[in-house]
Amino acid sequence: MPIIKKIHHVAVVVQDIEKSLLFWRDALGMTLSQVKNVPAQNARIAFLPAGESEVELVQPVGIDSGLARYLEKKGPGMHHICVQVDAIEPMLEQLKKLGVRLINENAMPGGDGKLYAFVHPESTGGVLVELYELPEN
Amino acid sequence: MPIIKKIHHVAVVVQDIEKSLLFWRDALGMTLSQVKNVPAQNARIAFLPAGESEVELVQPVGIDSGLARYLEKKGPGMHHICVQVDAIEPMLEQLKKLGVRLINENAMPGGDGKLYAFVHPESTGGVLVELYELPEN
Repeated sequence: MPIIKKIHHVAVVVQDIEKSLLFWRDALGMTLSQVKNVPAQNARIAFLPAGESEVELVQPVGIDSGLARYLEKKGPGMHHICVQVDAIEPMLEQLKKLGVRLINENAMPGGDGKLYAFVHPESTGGVLVELYELPEN
Repeated sequence: MPIIKKIHHVAVVVQDIEKSLLFWRDALGMTLSQVKNVPAQNARIAFLPAGESEVELVQPVGIDSGLARYLEKKGPGMHHICVQVDAIEPMLEQLKKLGVRLINENAMPGGDGKLYAFVHPESTGGVLVELYELPEN
């Protein structure tokens, strides 16, 4: 049985990373480890580690992406929760067998040896859930 | 300077805990540590640990509460993120000095020696943020 190891990150969609950092970094005092352009996601992402997890501030780049439309429609706020799993393909098989609706039917390469897949909010009770398998597993 | 130690939990507002457990416990395979009635929050809460954090499934009890109205208005999904801080009162002072809008101006007792306070989404970029100080600090 595949196992959920931890909450890897919580992603927050933001209009302006610099403005959001005024709260998360400057007011709460969280450490900003890096800000990275992620063209594959049409986004710029700020990473703020907290214990074994991270808060990720995700700013859409351009207007023609799912993320930009999400921000336009729902406004800024929590976007998804990512849980780390020890073995993503067996987990996806298990979810499919149980009739869970997946956005990614197979694990996608996410760079640095990472594999990811999204579960559709329809099957989770309204939460966009991302699964990660990391090389460290 | 007060320090954020970790993500303590992510709270998901649900219509029906038993139905939600079909995904989080039965499909994802997360452990259900307990289900608890929390009259102070007009809620029934299921706790599912993941590493050093937890997913909390929060079902409103009754119709006359902020939580029930939230569910009615926004539908089920992520409700708030809770970060653990080593010293909550100094953190609240720091936030107030920086003009951050707080829902609880002072730390509230949450049982078992826990102290909590909520930060208003207006100051965080749309995210309801809870702060926890735990006796273990």
